[in-house]
Amino acid sequence: MKGLTIQEMTVGQSASFAKTISEADVYQFAGITGDLNPAHINEEYAKNSMFKGRIAHGMLCGSLISAVLGMQLPGPGTIYMKQDLKFLAPVYFGDTLTVVCTVKELITEKNRAVIECKVTNQDGKDIIAGEALVMPPK
Amino acid sequence: MKGLTIQEMTVGQSASFAKTISEADVYQFAGITGDLNPAHINEEYAKNSMFKGRIAHGMLCGSLISAVLGMQLPGPGTIYMKQDLKFLAPVYFGDTLTVVCTVKELITEKNRAVIECKVTNQDGKDIIAGEALVMPPK
Amino acid sequence: MKGLTIQEMTVGQSASFAKTISEADVYQFAGITGDLNPAHINEEYAKNSMFKGRIAHGMLCGSLISAVLGMQLPGPGTIYMKQDLKFLAPVYFGDTLTVVCTVKELITEKNRAVIECKVTNQDGKDIIAGEALVMPPK
Amino acid sequence: MKGLTIQEMTVGQSASFAKTISEADVYQFAGITGDLNPAHINEEYAKNSMFKGRIAHGMLCGSLISAVLGMQLPGPGTIYMKQDLKFLAPVYFGDTLTVVCTVKELITEKNRAVIECKVTNQDGKDIIAGEALVMPPK
Repeated sequence: MKGLTIQEMTVGQSASFAKTISEADVYQFAGITGDLNPAHINEEYAKNSMFKGRIAHGMLCGSLISAVLGMQLPGPGTIYMKQDLKFLAPVYFGDTLTVVCTVKELITEKNRAVIECKVTNQDGKDIIAGEALVMPPK
Repeated sequence: MKGLTIQEMTVGQSASFAKTISEADVYQFAGITGDLNPAHINEEYAKNSMFKGRIAHGMLCGSLISAVLGMQLPGPGTIYMKQDLKFLAPVYFGDTLTVVCTVKELITEKNRAVIECKVTNQDGKDIIAGEALVMPPK
Repeated sequence: MKGLTIQEMTVGQSASFAKTISEADVYQFAGITGDLNPAHINEEYAKNSMFKGRIAHGMLCGSLISAVLGMQLPGPGTIYMKQDLKFLAPVYFGDTLTVVCTVKELITEKNRAVIECKVTNQDGKDIIAGEALVMPPK
Repeated sequence: MKGLTIQEMTVGQSASFAKTISEADVYQFAGITGDLNPAHINEEYAKNSMFKGRIAHGMLCGSLISAVLGMQLPGPGTIYMKQDLKFLAPVYFGDTLTVVCTVKELITEKNRAVIECKVTNQDGKDIIAGEALVMPPK
């Protein structure tokens, strides 16, 4: 239960996680966060919106990044300092998302790592592009 | 079920949401996102960590921002384009978080609003500072 | 975080909330309440019943009324005194329910409001008719 | 998986169910129903309210009645027609509720049963008093 130290990390190293986003995921996320926006939980509203159906919360999809950082790269003991996210396309119930996190820069003297984060769907479409700043465990 | 248009928004306008973060919130969030980092779900590990106990996911706390943007300011019909987050302090089970979102800039010709996002706890401590870019409904 | 006082309410005033009822909603509700009636959670049983499929709990649908009373009309600070419900038609997974609560009577000297509650589905069919008695916040 | 017919029921017959209401129950119920009233999910707000702490939703407590009607008396196959509820006292996280449902009247020619419903807490305090009208299975 200890992740990689900065000495054990290399620029270009990557890790990934993939999940099919279910209606239940979106509904539970709505309940936890209080974001009951009709775009997520009201099919009658959503089918008349520009997205033509209920979509997942952008932050739910972005939170899959946290799973990669906290579980794999760098893993347990990591301190999450910053996360930037660009939401590029909608996610529908049943879409399968793949997150890939890649080490972009290592600032060894300050024990900081910059991680590039990409989320794509089953068709290879970009869903989220982002960047994280973390402190790997010592 | 329609949020504010950019014409109905003003710089300095704000909206907020508050919630006590429960163990159940953190555990469900772990299950949805796959972030089963021991810092969140393993008390034996966590009590020996620098935080001295299990803490909530930064992205869970950040996701409360989505509730304010999607439900209130601008509200239903908003398209979420970007979210930047700085994680400033840990959140323990039972902490009460308050999110305040404030309109920082309105780019009317492009229909974009920049929203400043702050999350604080029951002691007034800063938990998250961030900025969102959204397209209000037309 | 304070709802409407009785002085701020008027007869005929209304508020609403809508949600598509998911299988996950029904299953979680079953777990919370202990109502694991096969009509709700056993498709083999339910498809041979008079409803020809699993249906949502009447009390789950009725509980959407509580969201309108507690969040909007009168809103935070309201004390819920009575709720009467007539269950008029079944709700299937994927149905979108709309709750409309309308102020029917204001008993100002006792600080009591009688609220008429209607739940309909996406086809405009009546699902629940009810009446609530509440004490608005002072 | 078939409940009691009206011929198998007698006036005075009763059944019960008991459950300790957890924070997780209340938080999930809030998420399912959209009732994120601060009385239920915001301890800072709630401790300054007349109830001095977060309380369970009245409709969550009332929904335990549905478990008794749908699982035991009359049980599977029952059609739920009406439910009246009086909310008499608040329920705190950790309170143990007992629901007792008692047959009050049998209208055999119309296949209707009137059931008296009582919810009490671990101190014997009355929480809910209500009445249900059901059609037992044939």
